[in-house]
Amino acid sequence: MATFAKRYSLPGTSPGTLRARAGPVRPLRITVCDYDENTFEERAGLSLDECRAYFYSQKVTWVHVEGDASPELLRELGEAYELHPLAMEDVINTGQRTKLDVYTQHLFAVVSLVERTASGTRTEQVSLFLGKGFVVSFHEGERDIFAPVRERLRNGVSRRIRERKTDYLFYALLDVVIDEAFPVLEAIGEELELLEGEVFDDPSRRSLDRIYAVKRELVTLRRAQWPQREVLNQLVRDDSPYIQDETKTFLRDCYDHTIQIIDLTESFRETTSSLMDVYLSSISNRMNEIMKVLTIIATIFIPLSFVVGLYGMNFDTSSPWNMPELGFRYGYPLLWVVIVGVVVGMLVFFRKRDWL
Amino acid sequence: MATFAKRYSLPGTSPGTLRARAGPVRPLRITVCDYDENTFEERAGLSLDECRAYFYSQKVTWVHVEGDASPELLRELGEAYELHPLAMEDVINTGQRTKLDVYTQHLFAVVSLVERTASGTRTEQVSLFLGKGFVVSFHEGERDIFAPVRERLRNGVSRRIRERKTDYLFYALLDVVIDEAFPVLEAIGEELELLEGEVFDDPSRRSLDRIYAVKRELVTLRRAQWPQREVLNQLVRDDSPYIQDETKTFLRDCYDHTIQIIDLTESFRETTSSLMDVYLSSISNRMNEIMKVLTIIATIFIPLSFVVGLYGMNFDTSSPWNMPELGFRYGYPLLWVVIVGVVVGMLVFFRKRDWL
Amino acid sequence: MATFAKRYSLPGTSPGTLRARAGPVRPLRITVCDYDENTFEERAGLSLDECRAYFYSQKVTWVHVEGDASPELLRELGEAYELHPLAMEDVINTGQRTKLDVYTQHLFAVVSLVERTASGTRTEQVSLFLGKGFVVSFHEGERDIFAPVRERLRNGVSRRIRERKTDYLFYALLDVVIDEAFPVLEAIGEELELLEGEVFDDPSRRSLDRIYAVKRELVTLRRAQWPQREVLNQLVRDDSPYIQDETKTFLRDCYDHTIQIIDLTESFRETTSSLMDVYLSSISNRMNEIMKVLTIIATIFIPLSFVVGLYGMNFDTSSPWNMPELGFRYGYPLLWVVIVGVVVGMLVFFRKRDWL
Amino acid sequence: MATFAKRYSLPGTSPGTLRARAGPVRPLRITVCDYDENTFEERAGLSLDECRAYFYSQKVTWVHVEGDASPELLRELGEAYELHPLAMEDVINTGQRTKLDVYTQHLFAVVSLVERTASGTRTEQVSLFLGKGFVVSFHEGERDIFAPVRERLRNGVSRRIRERKTDYLFYALLDVVIDEAFPVLEAIGEELELLEGEVFDDPSRRSLDRIYAVKRELVTLRRAQWPQREVLNQLVRDDSPYIQDETKTFLRDCYDHTIQIIDLTESFRETTSSLMDVYLSSISNRMNEIMKVLTIIATIFIPLSFVVGLYGMNFDTSSPWNMPELGFRYGYPLLWVVIVGVVVGMLVFFRKRDWL
Amino acid sequence: MATFAKRYSLPGTSPGTLRARAGPVRPLRITVCDYDENTFEERAGLSLDECRAYFYSQKVTWVHVEGDASPELLRELGEAYELHPLAMEDVINTGQRTKLDVYTQHLFAVVSLVERTASGTRTEQVSLFLGKGFVVSFHEGERDIFAPVRERLRNGVSRRIRERKTDYLFYALLDVVIDEAFPVLEAIGEELELLEGEVFDDPSRRSLDRIYAVKRELVTLRRAQWPQREVLNQLVRDDSPYIQDETKTFLRDCYDHTIQIIDLTESFRETTSSLMDVYLSSISNRMNEIMKVLTIIATIFIPLSFVVGLYGMNFDTSSPWNMPELGFRYGYPLLWVVIVGVVVGMLVFFRKRDWL
Repeated sequence: MATFAKRYSLPGTSPGTLRARAGPVRPLRITVCDYDENTFEERAGLSLDECRAYFYSQKVTWVHVEGDASPELLRELGEAYELHPLAMEDVINTGQRTKLDVYTQHLFAVVSLVERTASGTRTEQVSLFLGKGFVVSFHEGERDIFAPVRERLRNGVSRRIRERKTDYLFYALLDVVIDEAFPVLEAIGEELELLEGEVFDDPSRRSLDRIYAVKRELVTLRRAQWPQREVLNQLVRDDSPYIQDETKTFLRDCYDHTIQIIDLTESFRETTSSLMDVYLSSISNRMNEIMKVLTIIATIFIPLSFVVGLYGMNFDTSSPWNMPELGFRYGYPLLWVVIVGVVVGMLVFFRKRDWL
Repeated sequence: MATFAKRYSLPGTSPGTLRARAGPVRPLRITVCDYDENTFEERAGLSLDECRAYFYSQKVTWVHVEGDASPELLRELGEAYELHPLAMEDVINTGQRTKLDVYTQHLFAVVSLVERTASGTRTEQVSLFLGKGFVVSFHEGERDIFAPVRERLRNGVSRRIRERKTDYLFYALLDVVIDEAFPVLEAIGEELELLEGEVFDDPSRRSLDRIYAVKRELVTLRRAQWPQREVLNQLVRDDSPYIQDETKTFLRDCYDHTIQIIDLTESFRETTSSLMDVYLSSISNRMNEIMKVLTIIATIFIPLSFVVGLYGMNFDTSSPWNMPELGFRYGYPLLWVVIVGVVVGMLVFFRKRDWL
Repeated sequence: MATFAKRYSLPGTSPGTLRARAGPVRPLRITVCDYDENTFEERAGLSLDECRAYFYSQKVTWVHVEGDASPELLRELGEAYELHPLAMEDVINTGQRTKLDVYTQHLFAVVSLVERTASGTRTEQVSLFLGKGFVVSFHEGERDIFAPVRERLRNGVSRRIRERKTDYLFYALLDVVIDEAFPVLEAIGEELELLEGEVFDDPSRRSLDRIYAVKRELVTLRRAQWPQREVLNQLVRDDSPYIQDETKTFLRDCYDHTIQIIDLTESFRETTSSLMDVYLSSISNRMNEIMKVLTIIATIFIPLSFVVGLYGMNFDTSSPWNMPELGFRYGYPLLWVVIVGVVVGMLVFFRKRDWL
Repeated sequence: MATFAKRYSLPGTSPGTLRARAGPVRPLRITVCDYDENTFEERAGLSLDECRAYFYSQKVTWVHVEGDASPELLRELGEAYELHPLAMEDVINTGQRTKLDVYTQHLFAVVSLVERTASGTRTEQVSLFLGKGFVVSFHEGERDIFAPVRERLRNGVSRRIRERKTDYLFYALLDVVIDEAFPVLEAIGEELELLEGEVFDDPSRRSLDRIYAVKRELVTLRRAQWPQREVLNQLVRDDSPYIQDETKTFLRDCYDHTIQIIDLTESFRETTSSLMDVYLSSISNRMNEIMKVLTIIATIFIPLSFVVGLYGMNFDTSSPWNMPELGFRYGYPLLWVVIVGVVVGMLVFFRKRDWL
Repeated sequence: MATFAKRYSLPGTSPGTLRARAGPVRPLRITVCDYDENTFEERAGLSLDECRAYFYSQKVTWVHVEGDASPELLRELGEAYELHPLAMEDVINTGQRTKLDVYTQHLFAVVSLVERTASGTRTEQVSLFLGKGFVVSFHEGERDIFAPVRERLRNGVSRRIRERKTDYLFYALLDVVIDEAFPVLEAIGEELELLEGEVFDDPSRRSLDRIYAVKRELVTLRRAQWPQREVLNQLVRDDSPYIQDETKTFLRDCYDHTIQIIDLTESFRETTSSLMDVYLSSISNRMNEIMKVLTIIATIFIPLSFVVGLYGMNFDTSSPWNMPELGFRYGYPLLWVVIVGVVVGMLVFFRKRDWL
């Protein structure tokens, strides 16, 4: 039940308490991008103090924190960028539900990155802060998912991202996280296509296991995507000062993507339900086949066994009343006529019932 | 899983990027109609430059782009008619969800054309732009679906379409796309009628396959039609400057059509579910039949086999205790009385249980 | 699939086109009632021209058109009473979804008359126009459903209908159409009661067919009634000048009726689903019974057959090792002791398992 | 299908027509309570004229009509208290859906009293009018459900009800009717508890019948309670002059009760569904058990029967090729070794498959 | 059916009546905490009179009542703190639905504490009053759930709770009650994980019982949590004077927790449904296995038994027409050839059908 990977505070704990995380610690890595239309500076592997300095930069500052950070470090970073302690609690205790919180100093969004591994689909939490002049992002996972954005910032091919402000950067990061669901859905779609063939042609126990697994993956996806939609809707409708109107056009596009994802997820869910039904009725069909074979064999040979058993009886044939058939000259050939008659009759009966 | 024919941008790609399409390239064809109440000009197979000139026409201009166009060409066309790059991205990356976007310069609608082929129902994307004085439409498919509209424009039978402005043309095109669902639904309805007879009279594995296939077609239809309804509702309610009040009466009619389509789709979905249930219970019934036959035969003959086996034993009849029946003068006829008694008793028992 | 009795315009047809209807033509009949508080005039079988004259009457005019009319006649009638062409299209192409359209000149309502025939429940379209000083109603069916209203208008028992204006007449006609669902529901209710007894006491294949048929009737009813409710809600809430406030009290009553109808329909739908479940589990139960009988017989007699077969073997009894039992003085009686022991043991076993 | 106890007007009947009721006539009984803070007068078995006089009383007047009244009497009573004819129609034609109608002269509420009898749960209609200075209540059933309220009015223990006005009385009556659902739900809860034990330990056909019956009772309850909630919500939100703000606190409490009732009803519905599933899987389990026994017996003894049949053949043993085993000295003991081997092998096989 | 632990007033009882509770009486214990930023006083086991004095304290006063109190005592306490009688009724008659009532003098919240015991999940009612300067809480259960809050108040580690006012204390108590659902969900999650393994690897009757039990626990959880969400939503949105804006940030966090809980509950419910499906199809699969074995054995040996029975017949071999095979020199070996042929043929047939 990996869906219950939630790390919650013990009931009664003071809110905003930053608890240490369990599990293996992966190395922390802080990357800062500081840019405006004309300049671009990128520094990776910064210390907390170096990072703090960029808070006062006049350009757009993007601080990205990857890997496992100690709660203390995060608290200090949070204080440096004046991030709200309740929001920071959600950053630490990953496994939060996707949401958008509007604080006085910044927007805070928790979004779910969907990933498909060999053992199923799971979600990773990405936390994004959008403040005045800065974006701070946290991602605990292993892949550097924001590399393409950094690449776009770095080279001059698509200037738009450099010309625009923090809200556009915020959108760009959101967009990356949301679009990660598409390849996952594509993979699930392909798996469903395979399963469909399998269930129709040769349903096995394995098919059932796979359908169940895909169903669970879709539940995970759905749990991740529905609130995503809400968050984007809120971003598009709200009139917080953090998002400019031009950027809303892009966010609306992003909103359309979440709708597409939800749409597909729901269709796939229906498909899995149908496949389950088909699987079950395939099993019933197979049982029918088996029963037919048994019935045909049994109903033909059981009466015949009775007949041959009959003439294996040892009645005293000295009495003319006892089994005179045994003494007939053509008794045995006649019996064969009876046997063939029974078989043919049965076959006609089965043919009539459409069993053959 | 043709439902996953979506071509999405790679996560992290800059929005508005026009990607080339995969698949076989069908020849591009641009048709322009330029008309007012009194004049009508139609030119097919135009080049981009010829096309661009019509942007400045004072009459109603309708640019229709069919077949596969290169992203570059589309970008240039988009720029010529001042279409928003995000909208153009949706034109290129077909497989978008139906939607209506209001941009400053134009309305942009994506609608789904439903088509039923031998391999199932699928949707094609039709993109429509409604600007000041022009309508631009894109359709990637093979059929020239807008031919009847062009015909109505061309001849003078129904003048209304010529007297009215771009918004009426926009409505007329929408209407064509939406009404294409009716013949599809009719075909599905007829198939369901056939399947119904089949499932009740002679359910086979093929019936199950067909029900499943129809179910999938209906999922596709539903996914296409629900957002269509939303789009039309938006058009009817909204007070954008692009749609005049008289045209709204027609759009409301169009809205009614989408409601009808959705209604029918949902009824058909319920019908497929019921058919599935009936199919499953037919199989159960059949199993019951088979089991009854087996049981009747087995319960009659297995005891009889025991009896005849009994008198086939080779006990030493020199002892008067051992099988004296074999020496009875009327032993064999008496046995037949027993046999007939057992058979009749069984038949009475089965009759009482309603098995015969 | 009679539910698909929809006659739609071909995609691309100009809206408002009046297409001729297929099917047998029943004689057209126009009835006009013209009345106020004190006077009442009723004329049946009028020609179009006679009918047209009443448009200018100062009293309440009710034009009722029954049977199949040619599109041309309807168009002319529509023009005479200034009815909107789009509305007239819906009158001709029957099979429209229930709806209420507010035009500048009149209200236009399409309502569904529910009828239960031997072959199932079906709906007929009744179209109602409410204009200034007139009501025009169209009904294609065979029964003269509005006879009771005409009767009430004619005699002086209930004056109310004569004292009030067109909107009350409009309400009275609506009320007739909606209340026609009650006898249908009552008939379905009685059928369900019968089916319930049948499914519990003696489920047969016929029960399944009937449940399925009732289910389809309820789907039809539901499709007809849900939009009806919407239409009445609109009439009650809206502040169009056509409906006076006093009449709204009556319309609210009518609204309550649609709610009752929907309520009952939904309850009945649940009942059919439960019946289906009960039917299926009855079949399973029956299969259990059959299997029990087979198993009891087979498990008793198959071992016994083995035993008697054993002593039918022809081993050379000259060797003292071979089947000495055959030579025992009390071999046969002892064997019967064994047989009776096996049978009793089996019966005890079955009794313990609750199979007997 | 007692759920269809609806008595509807024939389609086309003039609204407000008071039809006579079918069924046995129970004696009519009118009880009037007239009170204020200090005085209390109660008179039972009044005639219509006596009753009419109280309309002009300055105190709070509560007229309660029980049993079957003739439509004429009701009409006259309705006229005496200026009750709207449409509302009176709903009083006569019982079986109305729960609702609240606001007329100019009074509020009119129809509520459903739930009762559980040996033959299932059914609802009785209670109609309540709240006018200026009076409350009129109608109840067709046999029990005097409002006795506790009358008792509270009579003695001085809880003065509140006497101090307050008509709206509090109205609330008190509503509260009685709604709370009648609690004992019904408790009884159903206890029945479900019993059924649960039965289905898990010893599922029988009777269990299925009971689950189905409870399910139908819950459908009835639900149909009665959902609109009840709506009515109370309306009473709490609305700002009609009939309900004072202090009373709304009490109505809100009453609203909470309906929510509780609905909540429990829905939980119980889920429980019945789960029980149905468990019942079905119990039957499947049982079938499995039966099949296992049959299979074990048959697969052990059918091969053995073949073997012993083999040595019952009468080949001419004078040829050394024919059945030399019969002449072996230890043939018979060897055969037993084979038989025991087969049995043990089979048992090991079944043990491995977890069938034993 | 422990879900029906509701203790309701008899229908017709005057509202606000405080009924004595049934069941064993656990000792009552009143604890008062009175504090401000700098001082903290805690007294346990107070009498009613001592408790009453704190009502006039200028600091934040928290009165916590645990265990079973007599209705009289509660009434007096309620009067001392001016709590509304209707609210007090809900405190006494535990088993109320979660809700928030806004009275003039105070807020009143009923919340459900979820607890998982060996016999299933059940809820306990916690009642909270938030007035001017005081919080009164009631909890009938056995555990002292608010101990951690008292601890935080007591020591100076997290000052925030002491610096803030009654509304923050109210939030802190709410938070404790709501977060108690997390360990319950975790335990259920772990149980589901175990069940999943069991159902796939070795489904037994016990699995079914467990799935059913978990399902019922989830129904309980859901019934408790949905209204919780509503209450918190109301607290966050409402602008009652009792809750300050800073505290709303914390309540929003608490709201997020309820959403998480509901989310997980719904996912778990889906999981149980899927497990049920898998369980049922596992049983079907097993039945298939059993039937296959039976069919294979029976179809191989029943025909062979016929053959050997044939040559056990006692026809008079003196006629050359009767069973000449018995006299063949190689009759017996030939018969074995036939037998082996039949067996091999059958095995090939089964292999082709994928049964082996």
